Amino acid sequence: MSRLALPSCDLPAAPESALSAFFEPTRVALIGATDRQGSVGRALLENLSGFGARLFPVNARCDELLGRPCWRSVASIGQPVDLAVIATPAATMPSVIEACVAQGVRAAVVISAGFRETGAPGAVLEKQVLELARRGGLRLIGPNCLGLMVPQTGLNATFATAMARPGRVAFLSQSGALCTAILDWSFRQRVGFSAFVSVGSMLDVGWGDLIRHFGEDPSTESIVLYMESVGDAASFMAAARTVAAKKPIIAIKVGRTAEAARAAASHTGAMTGSDAVLDAALARAGVLRVDTIGELFDMAEVMAKQPLPNGPRLAILTNAGGPGALAADALVLRGGMLAELDAKTLQALDGSLPAHWSHGNPVDVLGDADAARYGGALRTLMAAPQADGLLAVLTPQAMTDPQAIAQALVAAARDGEKPVLASWMGGDAVESGREVLNAGGIPTYDYPDEAARAWQYLWQRQQRLRWLEETNRIACQERPAMSEACALAASHLAAGRRLLTEVEAKQMLAAAGIPTLETFQATSEDDAVRLAVDMGWPVVLKLHSPTLTHKSDVGGVRLDLADETAVREAWHAIQRAVPPADFAGVTVQRMVRQQGLELICGLSQDAQLGPVLLFGAGGVLVEVMQDHVLLLPPLSPMLVLDRIRQTKIFRALQGTRHLPAADVEALADTLVKLADLALAVPEIQELDINPLLAHAKGVLALDARIVLGAVTH
Amino acid sequence: MSRLALPSCDLPAAPESALSAFFEPTRVALIGATDRQGSVGRALLENLSGFGARLFPVNARCDELLGRPCWRSVASIGQPVDLAVIATPAATMPSVIEACVAQGVRAAVVISAGFRETGAPGAVLEKQVLELARRGGLRLIGPNCLGLMVPQTGLNATFATAMARPGRVAFLSQSGALCTAILDWSFRQRVGFSAFVSVGSMLDVGWGDLIRHFGEDPSTESIVLYMESVGDAASFMAAARTVAAKKPIIAIKVGRTAEAARAAASHTGAMTGSDAVLDAALARAGVLRVDTIGELFDMAEVMAKQPLPNGPRLAILTNAGGPGALAADALVLRGGMLAELDAKTLQALDGSLPAHWSHGNPVDVLGDADAARYGGALRTLMAAPQADGLLAVLTPQAMTDPQAIAQALVAAARDGEKPVLASWMGGDAVESGREVLNAGGIPTYDYPDEAARAWQYLWQRQQRLRWLEETNRIACQERPAMSEACALAASHLAAGRRLLTEVEAKQMLAAAGIPTLETFQATSEDDAVRLAVDMGWPVVLKLHSPTLTHKSDVGGVRLDLADETAVREAWHAIQRAVPPADFAGVTVQRMVRQQGLELICGLSQDAQLGPVLLFGAGGVLVEVMQDHVLLLPPLSPMLVLDRIRQTKIFRALQGTRHLPAADVEALADTLVKLADLALAVPEIQELDINPLLAHAKGVLALDARIVLGAVTH
Repeated sequence: MSRLALPSCDLPAAPESALSAFFEPTRVALIGATDRQGSVGRALLENLSGFGARLFPVNARCDELLGRPCWRSVASIGQPVDLAVIATPAATMPSVIEACVAQGVRAAVVISAGFRETGAPGAVLEKQVLELARRGGLRLIGPNCLGLMVPQTGLNATFATAMARPGRVAFLSQSGALCTAILDWSFRQRVGFSAFVSVGSMLDVGWGDLIRHFGEDPSTESIVLYMESVGDAASFMAAARTVAAKKPIIAIKVGRTAEAARAAASHTGAMTGSDAVLDAALARAGVLRVDTIGELFDMAEVMAKQPLPNGPRLAILTNAGGPGALAADALVLRGGMLAELDAKTLQALDGSLPAHWSHGNPVDVLGDADAARYGGALRTLMAAPQADGLLAVLTPQAMTDPQAIAQALVAAARDGEKPVLASWMGGDAVESGREVLNAGGIPTYDYPDEAARAWQYLWQRQQRLRWLEETNRIACQERPAMSEACALAASHLAAGRRLLTEVEAKQMLAAAGIPTLETFQATSEDDAVRLAVDMGWPVVLKLHSPTLTHKSDVGGVRLDLADETAVREAWHAIQRAVPPADFAGVTVQRMVRQQGLELICGLSQDAQLGPVLLFGAGGVLVEVMQDHVLLLPPLSPMLVLDRIRQTKIFRALQGTRHLPAADVEALADTLVKLADLALAVPEIQELDINPLLAHAKGVLALDARIVLGAVTH
Repeated sequence: MSRLALPSCDLPAAPESALSAFFEPTRVALIGATDRQGSVGRALLENLSGFGARLFPVNARCDELLGRPCWRSVASIGQPVDLAVIATPAATMPSVIEACVAQGVRAAVVISAGFRETGAPGAVLEKQVLELARRGGLRLIGPNCLGLMVPQTGLNATFATAMARPGRVAFLSQSGALCTAILDWSFRQRVGFSAFVSVGSMLDVGWGDLIRHFGEDPSTESIVLYMESVGDAASFMAAARTVAAKKPIIAIKVGRTAEAARAAASHTGAMTGSDAVLDAALARAGVLRVDTIGELFDMAEVMAKQPLPNGPRLAILTNAGGPGALAADALVLRGGMLAELDAKTLQALDGSLPAHWSHGNPVDVLGDADAARYGGALRTLMAAPQADGLLAVLTPQAMTDPQAIAQALVAAARDGEKPVLASWMGGDAVESGREVLNAGGIPTYDYPDEAARAWQYLWQRQQRLRWLEETNRIACQERPAMSEACALAASHLAAGRRLLTEVEAKQMLAAAGIPTLETFQATSEDDAVRLAVDMGWPVVLKLHSPTLTHKSDVGGVRLDLADETAVREAWHAIQRAVPPADFAGVTVQRMVRQQGLELICGLSQDAQLGPVLLFGAGGVLVEVMQDHVLLLPPLSPMLVLDRIRQTKIFRALQGTRHLPAADVEALADTLVKLADLALAVPEIQELDINPLLAHAKGVLALDARIVLGAVTH
């Protein structure tokens, strides 16, 4: 079974956090301590000296360092140590780790570089270190990292020049350089951290361990990740799924575009490039992925301050039309939704606002609005069930009292249960109002367009939590065994078959319960006629070839054959169109006259994340239009619909000038079955249904391609 | 001829700025001056009192105000006045304007509200005011505005609470509220202005006048617009085209999404909703449109400091991999391009960098880089011809000297001719470096992703200037007269025909020189056979109907008819398929077997901006896929290619697995001819070629639809 598909109800209970020794040590050894100016060992010694716990500097050549006793070796410490911080050269690492293990050390932060990043010998060394640590029950953060900090307790096991401010955000970064920049920035912005961890190469401790740890850590309200690679995907996903439900996990991951380039490749397998897969996986695991570093910390703050919305519909309240329109533009351009005010709400607003108010959302209470007028509209909108949240915009005009209106907003937010965001635009004139908002827990933005973006992220997180809930619900259900499909795959593989014929691929789909246009193989002209007579006129003949897969390109497809003569002519025409070696007969299928949309449904295996489904607009332009989404099994109709709604072709499924609305339920059902097939038959390496015809009364797989292979995970 | 198409070489020389009286008055009258606390008149009086010029407060009931002499009427001033600032109630306006005209006043800022925004009587009043002003040679800014400021001279004709800082940016805003917010914000951000104008309802003076004025104003380096509507489009476009070539014009316009919703409508005409048209027009006029208020002023600053790049290729230099990758992601996601370093550059970098450097762009000089190493790589990249500009990223690490590296960057930028941007990441540790960069004219950003966005805007402006140059070049060329197409349109209209038949529409295209699949009308079975014999087998028969336009939906299209029998059968089948009243015979055309891509080319008339072309992916999903761009005539192949390159279907035109590369030159030529047709035959209200088949050897209009109408502009 796929790693991703692990139902969370089947997960073994998470082991008690193995990482407490890293973050709550009482005895710390610093291996590689020195008093040499400008060295990493000196910086670590100074930083760790500020910590309350017992510190044991270790240096083979000193008995004293900076006025503190120093030990010649780990062994000589002679008492239990929780955490070792190691800054000696890479080559010494095996013996250092052995010494730590012998001393019963449970956790080590390896600052030192010089491992895999230096080439093959470094990689070998690294492997040796990992084996020694694993065997000795020692967990290891790094190597090649800046270290870690726990500001609340004063633990600073880094060589950075200052200690982070205490706060409620756990920041985990795969870039040490970004750590130093963020740390420096955080002082100015007064951002505080419950922990600050540079994860380095993640030789042992990875995202999964850390997310699970901070998920349990009562000092941590939200977890913020800077990712360059996902590492152990199964561990990451399992941890994220468990933790995201209770604490926001917000991630930025670089490498969107390198993968986007790969995604331009020409078949489904290549299109599910790994960044796109990871993106889908993050979404399913409840992780919020943001685009910029600015958004990373902003959203950590917003989510700590405000509840999540129950729906996507935002009400915008403003004392100026332009800024309100800017916010609406920003919202809708990011896929958001303006609340549509109902008659009752409009009436209530009519009662409290001057005649020229905007009479819609954004609600413009006009430039001369005082606190009473603004506040009245505010309370109406907070009470309106058709708005899931509120963005309050204010510009400093003659009659405006930014502070009083801010107080009204704080009071309304406190009494309501909806998220409230604000943009008090300007400088000093609105500063006192901003202070009131900050103190009252209402996120404020310089410009309303930024606030609209934050709203979209809030709703996105809510939506992801719903997906998580649904995933957990269906993961506990029994999935279909698909025994017939399993047997088919086993018998093909036993016969050494990997690339299935169209007929075989369709049998597999049919076995999975996916509506499929039955197709038969004919190895003689008479065979073809007999098959056609059996299935009824008109029929389609297609080349059956052991070598050529793009049948229509070579003139190997003959449509709409209405009688025996036509079938016989088509047989000969196809035979003539290709060299004899490429001709192994034809396939015969019913001519489908049903009007519908051509979709693509695919399945491929991601090396890290297991089976991935693809849904999108089908046809020959599938690679050009790139109108598709990825889905991870297991699926339910709700999970399918929420995801495929993000494609353009989904709008066409609602009906176009040329076509009636398609049977979207049948489509969702087909994707659910395809996901079940992926879980039940992991031997399917690639599967394309292109096209899947979606019409008013169902769906039908018109063509199919399957590649089998050995299960590698 | 279309207003947009006005060749700039035919423009009458711009009249000497009629607006100097607004911005350089020596005598100012304030009509509606008062000492009443909290009133607009009092605020204006106080603000204007700080100005050096002669001020004449006017109030019918006072001889003195705040210790200054006051005049009872405009007439009583008894000497020439340049500028009148008017804050009396709307109802008094006609008499006030008359008095100003009588006194020889040349310019008036009307602060007062109470005109069209209050309904029909206000609109009538407004019209009367405009007529009086026009007749008297008085120019008018407003009504319903905050007023204007010229910080350099101390002129503050607003009721705002403070004067803007002097600077080089002219800010023109259609929202008074946004003015107050931006003004307040500008003090804190130390943003200065050459002028600050609240344009109000633009009853008289509009965008065009102001852009032309500030284009000539030596104190203004860039013009920044907040737009809610375009007003007089022809005046705006003509002014922008002239001015954008010498000064950056940067605009934010709200209302993208209201139009985007309209764009969902089902035919070409509706898809070219006016915001999309305006967007295309801004691009052609050299105006940079940004998305957020933050970007508006940021780009004004960047463009004042840095040269424009000669190409899109950005080199990223960094001392940390993660931030470099973030910048690359942000760049490519916004359509940007990383410079590809050539062997010589790579070799030079190899010579100066440690072995583990990134060996590509982004150039990561590693965390331990000092100023010498960073500076060496910097000079190499500045000299590399394959990079059009540089983004320097720095994180504060142990060996980093942010200030020395900033100095190296400033020196390299001064010596080179490429734009240079920087992101010194962090807080206090990099602050001194940021100060060096600021003083050296290098824009700095907190995060490299923001810098990458600024780079894209720089390149976008350069590209727009090239379009402007090309537009001016071709506007001076003689366009084809298209006399045959003109004659066709005239004769159809003379006959009262508006919706042309397919045959007629194709005749029009052919007359314009667009390759068209010839189609003939047959009103009898024998006719159809004779036409088929003449053109050669196989042929296509389509329903010809006065009422039904969606022929294939009703079974009115029969393809691939190979002989006379097939044609006769098809005639009867089509006849049977529709009620007799809907059947007026068939059209006959050659069966096209040529494999190619189905495109759409359309033409519609925008009420404000005249003829607009649309190009995109064709077929029945055209509305769903929304893969199209708008183009404004006149066109040249360069203008066409730069624009259509932005569609996804353009990639397919380069060749796909199924299709060879299409003849893009022939496609561009067709769009140029369509633009010429639009200019020559303004009677064409709507035109759709869907599909236009693009194949390896040319293009072919397979179907066409034209609606004619009276020329309204």
